[in-house]
Amino acid sequence: MLDTMRWTGDGLLELLDQTRLPFEKSYIKCTEYTDVAEAIKRLAVRGAPAIGAAAAYGLVLAARKIRANTKKEFLTELEARARELAATRPTAVNLHWALNRMLRKMRLAEPEDAGLLCDLLLEEAQAIFREDITGNRRMARYGLELIPEGARILTHCNAGALATAGYGTALGLVRAAHEAGRRVSVYAGETRPLLQGARLTAWEMLQEGIPVTLITDSMAGYLLAKGKADLVVVGADRIAANGDVANKIGTYSLAVLAREHKIPFYVAAPVSTIDLSLASGEEIPIEERDSSEVTHLAGRPVAPEGVNVWNPAFDVTPARLITAIITDRGIVKPPYDENLRKTVEGLNRNLVIELTAEDGKSNL
Amino acid sequence: MLDTMRWTGDGLLELLDQTRLPFEKSYIKCTEYTDVAEAIKRLAVRGAPAIGAAAAYGLVLAARKIRANTKKEFLTELEARARELAATRPTAVNLHWALNRMLRKMRLAEPEDAGLLCDLLLEEAQAIFREDITGNRRMARYGLELIPEGARILTHCNAGALATAGYGTALGLVRAAHEAGRRVSVYAGETRPLLQGARLTAWEMLQEGIPVTLITDSMAGYLLAKGKADLVVVGADRIAANGDVANKIGTYSLAVLAREHKIPFYVAAPVSTIDLSLASGEEIPIEERDSSEVTHLAGRPVAPEGVNVWNPAFDVTPARLITAIITDRGIVKPPYDENLRKTVEGLNRNLVIELTAEDGKSNL
Repeated sequence: MLDTMRWTGDGLLELLDQTRLPFEKSYIKCTEYTDVAEAIKRLAVRGAPAIGAAAAYGLVLAARKIRANTKKEFLTELEARARELAATRPTAVNLHWALNRMLRKMRLAEPEDAGLLCDLLLEEAQAIFREDITGNRRMARYGLELIPEGARILTHCNAGALATAGYGTALGLVRAAHEAGRRVSVYAGETRPLLQGARLTAWEMLQEGIPVTLITDSMAGYLLAKGKADLVVVGADRIAANGDVANKIGTYSLAVLAREHKIPFYVAAPVSTIDLSLASGEEIPIEERDSSEVTHLAGRPVAPEGVNVWNPAFDVTPARLITAIITDRGIVKPPYDENLRKTVEGLNRNLVIELTAEDGKSNL
Repeated sequence: MLDTMRWTGDGLLELLDQTRLPFEKSYIKCTEYTDVAEAIKRLAVRGAPAIGAAAAYGLVLAARKIRANTKKEFLTELEARARELAATRPTAVNLHWALNRMLRKMRLAEPEDAGLLCDLLLEEAQAIFREDITGNRRMARYGLELIPEGARILTHCNAGALATAGYGTALGLVRAAHEAGRRVSVYAGETRPLLQGARLTAWEMLQEGIPVTLITDSMAGYLLAKGKADLVVVGADRIAANGDVANKIGTYSLAVLAREHKIPFYVAAPVSTIDLSLASGEEIPIEERDSSEVTHLAGRPVAPEGVNVWNPAFDVTPARLITAIITDRGIVKPPYDENLRKTVEGLNRNLVIELTAEDGKSNL
């Protein structure tokens, strides 16, 4: 797989331009944090964990340009840049999570020197990046028990390597099952308006040699009615305390259809996607994007001029439709209120540390 | 509205090329029945009632070229052409219905002269065309009671004037409510892969001045979850004896979502769409079309080369999810087995004749 992003070591962040995939493989060179903000806004980098990691690197780029006399001044400037980066997209909470983690590191840091602070920030961004990959591999290992031999898996949008620092969340589970020698296959919903399923998920699966069949989003119901899929697994952009999940528009319809056809509906996401500060999905801000995403395709009109459009980028799936949430700290099942809190607060911390150490040896 | 088709009187059928709408308004000139067959196959004319009427005119074009010595020879040749026209698309039963009606007319005809037989065929094709429009207006009048003041209506694909000889089925109901002075508005699902909702329904509604909002098919679930629509109404390509409905792919998902959100799900279709010879929807042949419809848009690729595709053009909605079927002979409610049969067999024939006569005065 192509890297979603790479830090080249001399103050340059390269972001894979996902708007051009799979037809063109090119990287956007970011030397200013505003380059990163712009790339997040126009979805050159997308996927909740990926934009978290990209924003962390973006804050490093910002920090290197700050001219401040005291640590306090430095921090004030840095917080302003972090707010700008956080404002690029409203729904995925990983963006806020990563930036908060970066700022917390600074607040607790001992050095007063800006150069040393920048080094610490870079270390933290790289830790976020690395931990996302190890977390995804751990998540996949937990999730493996849910993906039986021969499983035909329906997914939506792209929760793959491209949506993360690497390996993927929902597609990480598929990858792990494939690597474990299980014959699995994928139905990829194309995911209008921006076709991440067609352009990214189908391409990722082809690259891995995992059998994949592309469908339009409207075909999912008939697919399940014909008994052609055994389970649904998707990623998440934000998970509320009660287990409601915001994810790419169309996810909710799939959850209703999965329930109708009595097949499991799984969500795979790192703990950094869980937002315990929101009681339910109703409080999650849902981004609405420009109507041209629906009325145009590759710059060409596909609808009459002047038509009104509703274009929410995400929807909310109520917890009651979700069979389980697979995280990097284990599988969370209902009651979500109680079990998500336990998972986030790390009551299983020992287990986590042990697995991380092992991952460190085996996978990185 | 533009005419879906027009017979110019000198052996020329002009078909509106719907593949180019709304960006280009052009007519395909058909002088041979094979021109009509080709236009049906490539969806230049589409919509169950419209392809029925077009095929009837196509058979007139075929008949005019037959050189036969006896009526028997003429009929044998004509039946062969009718089979070719019937084979263009498998799902919509109106195609078979219209061609059978044309052949029945010939079998019962008294003249032996080919010229006179052709005149009778043309009369029958024109009757099919005219009756489709009067039928749609009658259907809309029956359906009016189901479309309350202020109704926000979700529809799929295009069951409008363009899908019929004129006025439309599902959109005919919307038109009638609008004409009756009710404030109604429409959410049009874009209807991938061929975007009939975006290109045709949105355009029809804009032409009529009926408020319309375009959404991708994947947004329907969230739309209903947000309480933004009051009812769903769609057309049909074939209705089995038990009330199962084959219609554009994606219809079934909408029916499940409508049930989940406790709003009515209506089907609007002429009696010619009902096929009592099939016990249930499982027996309806579902057309699968070329993968390029999904992988390409306006000639450009939107998915990686070589990806496997599943592209059923229709799905089947089970009768249990359908609140009512609005026909040109009245509203049919469950139990469909019994009530569809009564409707087709014309137990309400008196009512029908009366309404037709009135229509003849007021609308045509």
